[in-house]
Amino acid sequence: MAVVQFTIVPLGTKTTSLSAYVAQVHQALEDSGVKHTLTPMGTVLEGPLDELLAVIRQVHELPFQAGPSRVMTLINIDDRRDKTGTMEQKLQSVRDKLPK
Amino acid sequence: MAVVQFTIVPLGTKTTSLSAYVAQVHQALEDSGVKHTLTPMGTVLEGPLDELLAVIRQVHELPFQAGPSRVMTLINIDDRRDKTGTMEQKLQSVRDKLPK
Amino acid sequence: MAVVQFTIVPLGTKTTSLSAYVAQVHQALEDSGVKHTLTPMGTVLEGPLDELLAVIRQVHELPFQAGPSRVMTLINIDDRRDKTGTMEQKLQSVRDKLPK
Amino acid sequence: MAVVQFTIVPLGTKTTSLSAYVAQVHQALEDSGVKHTLTPMGTVLEGPLDELLAVIRQVHELPFQAGPSRVMTLINIDDRRDKTGTMEQKLQSVRDKLPK
Repeated sequence: MAVVQFTIVPLGTKTTSLSAYVAQVHQALEDSGVKHTLTPMGTVLEGPLDELLAVIRQVHELPFQAGPSRVMTLINIDDRRDKTGTMEQKLQSVRDKLPK
Repeated sequence: MAVVQFTIVPLGTKTTSLSAYVAQVHQALEDSGVKHTLTPMGTVLEGPLDELLAVIRQVHELPFQAGPSRVMTLINIDDRRDKTGTMEQKLQSVRDKLPK
Repeated sequence: MAVVQFTIVPLGTKTTSLSAYVAQVHQALEDSGVKHTLTPMGTVLEGPLDELLAVIRQVHELPFQAGPSRVMTLINIDDRRDKTGTMEQKLQSVRDKLPK
Repeated sequence: MAVVQFTIVPLGTKTTSLSAYVAQVHQALEDSGVKHTLTPMGTVLEGPLDELLAVIRQVHELPFQAGPSRVMTLINIDDRRDKTGTMEQKLQSVRDKLPK
C-alpha cells in the first residue's frame, strides 16, 4: 500500500492555463477506480504501488494526445511497509498530534 | 500571488513515523497566519511568494530543533502573474471542466 | 526517448548517511545496462520511458531489503516527442546559448 | 552548508524548448559567484542555505522578464548539519562504497 502524488505538466502549450489537461487526467482516474484526491498542486493516489504507477503511466500519455509534444511528470512515492499507510491515516496521524 | 507546496522530510530519524514533525510545522503555520492546507503528501500555501518562502524557510528549521541533523525539504512553486491563482481557483478551474 | 531523474530516500534509517543505499542503487543500474548519471541530488536516466520506469520500480525495492521499512522515491520525467531528447543534447542546447 | 537542486519551468511558452531560459538562469548564476552545476534535469547549488534560496528567488524572476507569465520552480533542499555536505563529498561517499 502506497500513497503517491503526481503532477502532470504539459510544456509549450499556447496558454498558461493547464486545467483542461488536469480535468482530462481526473476524468481518466474516475474511470480507473483507483482512489484519488485532487489537490491544488497535484493528484494523490492510494493503493498497491504497481497499480498506481501503471495508472500514472497511462494518464501521462493523455496530454500528448491533446496536442503538446513535451510533458513533464513529477511523481512522489511514499511507500511504507511497517503499517498500512493511507491518505486518511496520514492526515489523521498529524491531527492527533495537534493541540486540541 | 503564488501557490506553493512543500514537504519537509527529516532524515535519519529513529522511527519511520514523521507525523510529529509535520504536526509541529502545521502548528507553526497556524500561528503564522499564512493560508495553508495539509494534504497527504505535503502542505500547500497561498499568498505573496516572498512571504511563503520566508515561512517555509522558518519551518524548515523546526525538525533540527527536535533532534534530526539532516532535513530534506521539497518545494514546488506555482507562480502565475496573468491572473490571480489561488488554491480554490485552481481546483475550481478543473471542476468546471469535468462532465456534470 | 525520455530523460528521467529519480531520488530514493529511505526514511527512519537511524543514521543520516544515505550513501550506502545510493551505492546499492547505482550498482544495480550498472548491471541494468540503462544509461545513467549520478548527480549530487539524484540519478538521471535516459532511454525509452517504460524501460526507465521499470528500472526505477526495481531499485525502489532495494532499500527495503537492506532494512528500512519506509522509502520515499521522487521521480521527474521529461518526455519530449518532437525531437530526440537526450541528457547530452539537453546540456548542449543550454551551452550553445551561453555567451562564448 | 546545504546542497540544493532547482528546476525552473516556464509554462505556456508556445515552443517546447526551454534551453534559452535555462541559459539565462545559468548566466545569472555565473555572475552570482555561487557554486553551481548544471545537470540534465536542473541546477545544483552548494553553500549557506539562505544565500542559495536568495539566488533561486532571483533567478525565478528571469523567465517572467522574457515573456512567460507563469513559472513553476521546483526546489529540493538537502540540509545536513552533522557534517559538511558538499556536492563533491556526496558523490565521493557513494563512489567509496562501489566495488572497485
